[in-house]
Amino acid sequence: MLLYDNAISGNCYKVRLLLAHLGLPYERRELDVVDRSNRPDVLGGLNPSLRVPTIVLDDGRAIGESGAILSYFGEGTRFVPADRYDRAQMLQWMFFEQYDHEPAIAVVRFWLHYSGVPAGFEDRFEEKKAAGYRALGAMERHLETHEWFVGDVMTLADIVLYAYTHVAGEGGFELERFPADGAWLGRVAAVPGHIPIDE
Amino acid sequence: MLLYDNAISGNCYKVRLLLAHLGLPYERRELDVVDRSNRPDVLGGLNPSLRVPTIVLDDGRAIGESGAILSYFGEGTRFVPADRYDRAQMLQWMFFEQYDHEPAIAVVRFWLHYSGVPAGFEDRFEEKKAAGYRALGAMERHLETHEWFVGDVMTLADIVLYAYTHVAGEGGFELERFPADGAWLGRVAAVPGHIPIDE
Repeated sequence: MLLYDNAISGNCYKVRLLLAHLGLPYERRELDVVDRSNRPDVLGGLNPSLRVPTIVLDDGRAIGESGAILSYFGEGTRFVPADRYDRAQMLQWMFFEQYDHEPAIAVVRFWLHYSGVPAGFEDRFEEKKAAGYRALGAMERHLETHEWFVGDVMTLADIVLYAYTHVAGEGGFELERFPADGAWLGRVAAVPGHIPIDE
Repeated sequence: MLLYDNAISGNCYKVRLLLAHLGLPYERRELDVVDRSNRPDVLGGLNPSLRVPTIVLDDGRAIGESGAILSYFGEGTRFVPADRYDRAQMLQWMFFEQYDHEPAIAVVRFWLHYSGVPAGFEDRFEEKKAAGYRALGAMERHLETHEWFVGDVMTLADIVLYAYTHVAGEGGFELERFPADGAWLGRVAAVPGHIPIDE
């Protein structure tokens, strides 16, 4: 299998983290997340959004969107609950991550740690920071009374939320304000098979 | 079942459309999408994002996020493919819809048709319009060679993409520039059991 990847992208790290837990081998091909001019040539026909991660299976068929890739490989494993309602809760947190969490926390992290805030976007910094804190707060309220996002074990919901939460400090988010989030980050990293984002 | 709903929200319409196709009865409770001050009281404990749609099952358990609600009710029906790769493709388009399509097309529609562009957001109008056109173009390229987004029948992917595409004109999007999108909208609306957004 071939993963179109980027070393600093949390969305790509989600895929690498699940594949590490599952012990599945694959090849990585790094794509630039700033200069995207080659994307139509490389990813056209593989992923309608022309984004990483995109994975190409051994038979040549491709899947885009981290949530879809994780669902594909997670099905039937310990990372996807057997119960129908629990599976819906897992997807609820996965869609929450892509709609509320990633567009705030990942973007602030990228601006602050990697690219600088682009000209004309200065007014959005505080707005995205506030949205990121709302997402961390929603997680905190859940984790104050739960060890994991769904059920009694780590699922895909934990993997996707871990990816950008554990590097939120690179966006200036003060994670020490969220002790339950912090304790949960430790639990995720302690699961045997874990790999860091820079491995 | 109880659906926390909003009549103009395409995200809520997705749920109503699937439940209509499945013939499942439920009660609707309208929530305001402008004045959200009562959201913590009403949706706290039911949905971490405090958004509609939120559905409460007969046993009192709740599910948030349109994509998760649709997956819950769609599992095992004709609207979710039996093949594992096809299910991943369905989810790919569902995540694409929530990440690329809805944040552009739904927001432009809401501003233009319902609320007016909020003060301080004028510079984002053209940017969101361009993002919406990119999403419509990605759909068009797929639909030029496919009748449906996944496989040979309507799936949850078609239902979620239909919701805001068919009212994109309310956001000033010129759908006539996308003939394959337009023909597909007609196919979705022709499936027996279809209901319009204002029913």
